[in-house]
Amino acid sequence: MLLRGAFRQCISGRHGGAAVRTFASAHREIPALTRDRYPVQRGSFAELNESDVATFRSILGDSTSRVLTAADEVQDYNIDYLRSVRGCGRVVLKPRTTAEVSELLRYCNDRRLAVCPQGGNTGLVGGSVPVFDEVVLSMQLMDKIERIDEYSGIVVCQAGCVLANLEEQVGARGLIMPLDLGAKGSCHIGGNVSTNAGGLRLVRYGNLHGSVLGVEAVTAEGRILDLMSNFKKDNTGYHLKHLFIGSEGTLGVITRLSIFCPTASRSVNVAFIGLRSYDAVKQTFLAAKRGLGEILSSCEMIDAPSLDSCTRFFGLQSPIEKYPFYMLIETSGSDAGHDEEKLSRFLEQSMENGLVEDGTVTNEPTKMKNIWKLRELIADSLLSDGYCFKYDISLPLDQFYDIVLAVRERVGDLAINVTGYGHVGDSNLHLNVSCKRFTPEIYAALEPFVYEYTSKLRGSVSAEHGIGFLKKKYLHYSKQAEPLRLMRQMKQLLDPNGILNPYKVLPPETPVTNH
Amino acid sequence: MLLRGAFRQCISGRHGGAAVRTFASAHREIPALTRDRYPVQRGSFAELNESDVATFRSILGDSTSRVLTAADEVQDYNIDYLRSVRGCGRVVLKPRTTAEVSELLRYCNDRRLAVCPQGGNTGLVGGSVPVFDEVVLSMQLMDKIERIDEYSGIVVCQAGCVLANLEEQVGARGLIMPLDLGAKGSCHIGGNVSTNAGGLRLVRYGNLHGSVLGVEAVTAEGRILDLMSNFKKDNTGYHLKHLFIGSEGTLGVITRLSIFCPTASRSVNVAFIGLRSYDAVKQTFLAAKRGLGEILSSCEMIDAPSLDSCTRFFGLQSPIEKYPFYMLIETSGSDAGHDEEKLSRFLEQSMENGLVEDGTVTNEPTKMKNIWKLRELIADSLLSDGYCFKYDISLPLDQFYDIVLAVRERVGDLAINVTGYGHVGDSNLHLNVSCKRFTPEIYAALEPFVYEYTSKLRGSVSAEHGIGFLKKKYLHYSKQAEPLRLMRQMKQLLDPNGILNPYKVLPPETPVTNH
Repeated sequence: MLLRGAFRQCISGRHGGAAVRTFASAHREIPALTRDRYPVQRGSFAELNESDVATFRSILGDSTSRVLTAADEVQDYNIDYLRSVRGCGRVVLKPRTTAEVSELLRYCNDRRLAVCPQGGNTGLVGGSVPVFDEVVLSMQLMDKIERIDEYSGIVVCQAGCVLANLEEQVGARGLIMPLDLGAKGSCHIGGNVSTNAGGLRLVRYGNLHGSVLGVEAVTAEGRILDLMSNFKKDNTGYHLKHLFIGSEGTLGVITRLSIFCPTASRSVNVAFIGLRSYDAVKQTFLAAKRGLGEILSSCEMIDAPSLDSCTRFFGLQSPIEKYPFYMLIETSGSDAGHDEEKLSRFLEQSMENGLVEDGTVTNEPTKMKNIWKLRELIADSLLSDGYCFKYDISLPLDQFYDIVLAVRERVGDLAINVTGYGHVGDSNLHLNVSCKRFTPEIYAALEPFVYEYTSKLRGSVSAEHGIGFLKKKYLHYSKQAEPLRLMRQMKQLLDPNGILNPYKVLPPETPVTNH
Repeated sequence: MLLRGAFRQCISGRHGGAAVRTFASAHREIPALTRDRYPVQRGSFAELNESDVATFRSILGDSTSRVLTAADEVQDYNIDYLRSVRGCGRVVLKPRTTAEVSELLRYCNDRRLAVCPQGGNTGLVGGSVPVFDEVVLSMQLMDKIERIDEYSGIVVCQAGCVLANLEEQVGARGLIMPLDLGAKGSCHIGGNVSTNAGGLRLVRYGNLHGSVLGVEAVTAEGRILDLMSNFKKDNTGYHLKHLFIGSEGTLGVITRLSIFCPTASRSVNVAFIGLRSYDAVKQTFLAAKRGLGEILSSCEMIDAPSLDSCTRFFGLQSPIEKYPFYMLIETSGSDAGHDEEKLSRFLEQSMENGLVEDGTVTNEPTKMKNIWKLRELIADSLLSDGYCFKYDISLPLDQFYDIVLAVRERVGDLAINVTGYGHVGDSNLHLNVSCKRFTPEIYAALEPFVYEYTSKLRGSVSAEHGIGFLKKKYLHYSKQAEPLRLMRQMKQLLDPNGILNPYKVLPPETPVTNH
């Protein structure tokens, strides 16, 4: 039975009101050094000396807060959010302007000092921290919003703006950022663009290759590339900015950008529904696309083990009874009455024709937030089992959930939970396998199995998280020899000494086939 | 007064039921050869001989229909749609498969034969026909639709599919192509992607960099680059496909692609309104974005001289009285009742607060088509004055229409009409200056003035038409030295012998500043 407007249970978490990312911060132990944990060799880069630091200080002017060298200050910049990698960078630089970035990079390139550009350091593939002793180029201080044009919807800003701050500022002008992520409280827009971040609104507003209208980037040699454009239509020569969208800081450092922000929706609704099968999920997605059309703004799937883990660990309660599958469907529109009518009709029809078993819907901000927690806290709850293997893959919708069943059967008792959830509206599955602790046995059962399975379906082995350091040996499952060759040629062209974010993205010359 | 549902006058054209592009085909005289009309020197490419033709025949198998050499058959492939350029290519090749394209290009590259890839030959900047005697590589026969997935909305097809055919096929599955152009009856999707075509739906569905999920391209050397992806989220390495989107066939030939198609809207409405000033146009656009929100699918501006020219030449009648400015606003949504309510409310409010003077609205297909003709036939009607200088520029909305006034004052009696119309919703102005015939005097009054004016406002000198052959000397008004240098490096990397679409896009090494 659909309880319209009658939200059955108030969902409350032990971490009431906390941002989405709460778990990892509880685990403050320092991870092993990347160079000790992974088979990786330091490149033939120069080593930092006192003269380098003095030069950095002369470029940045301020000796205390913009050139960090104290071990305790530098530590946080060396460890990633998941605490799965740790570098041993000895200096953190904080430029404020593009000219400073250019001068710093030119110097590092001349000196053959490797550089790791860093945004909010919220990446999940070890791309944003040094692997060895790379110089950390933090974009934290480049946080100016230069212009918000409420007519065209175009925002121009520096790369270090925190996504949530941008969201707030554009919101005040009736606009909305075209992307939304769990990490928005700390991630930088420049990092989002560099990693082509996906997130929760992609089903509605598309990807960053469409939304980002221009970038300014500095190459390894310090060349400033003005690829800015304040227009949605600009066909003047090669569209070079896309080289910097999703190349994870290996081809250049994005310093400024312009991005198109759609008009904000006055009305938002969230429905949480229960379904009997994955097939019902797929059919319901199609029905939502057709019935909700232009107001559909999120379409997420959650399987039973995912929800169980989340409610158990965070002390949350699901607003509906237990089902094998759940969907979180969000609408955003300009007329609350119209939106509610569309959503009611869609849900009623879906229940009548047997696709949906039960559901609840709300437009109250607190209740919507609580429903979103059921989806957004899954990842952290699974970490509480001890160790969690995380796969972020795109798969055809026809075979979207099969891999969860295949992996569950394959790993058997080795795992505590094998769960699947994610952005079904964008064919993006988060496959998680949790266990007490990492063992070579379960690792061997999972990899390369998961990647080979994905590759056979011509899926993507990294849907939105990127390649970074941790996934580069799997890249060849999604990219053939010719594209990999062209990637290397691009790297050679834009960063001839290979100083920019080394050890990341580009796989070894010979594809690794034996993990 | 707003006459809701009462469409005052049936708009009918002398070319009733004709496709949008009707005018140019009436002018069948053969234009001068490009090499005679423009100052351009042939590159040091090989000249076609009998042995080459024999090789082409051996590759393509069929000697009659897939290797054209008869002068009368080859002629049409040498002349562009606007009949402003004419090459003297002596052979037209029509591959059916990517492997054939690869073999042909490898041969041409080895032989140093220049190649001009051609889609539907509907471009407006002379990019799709040979400048000298380039081999024409026509994609006409590569017109297979491989897959339409109604769940994910993803379509996979060959590059030679005609846009209107795709529109029909995806429409049958409840989807819509994310772009719409006047030339859709003949343009190819591969050409659209190669030129990053904009068009009428961009305000709603975004640009092709967002919609195109993957391409397969063949480089000048015959390397097949499989950059296909069937997913909206795929962060596996550099996003190389964008190099081929908008580079107008100079870096490679797109042979296949996958594109995301949104859900088709069941309900479409078109409003045609009259306004007193450009400022009212700008304010009305903002009001439309906010009031119509997610259902706004087109927002076009037409100035009085544009409409006058169109109604006069084509014998059409405007559905409303005369005003200095008009807007065509289209909505597309999933619920007719909701959409009409939103549109009525928006129009009523806009009239109440004095932004809009008069207007009419309809959802009848014939009437909507007739209103669209008032917008789409402007370009052709202006050609009837004799000669028409056409500028396709992006400008900030604050100064969007100023350039029309400035040019009108500047050219004075030299022009018959100086008009501005276009996609105000995407900051894209079509500035047209018509006159009896081309004279050096009016040319000198217009150029470089228009480009310098645009450049000063950091506008784009080619919003959607691209650079092709005709605009390459103006590229430097929108692109600085560093991006131009990187463009040349890309060209060198992907087409070392420069055989692919030579004389196009890339400007001379030293920017031309004196026109």
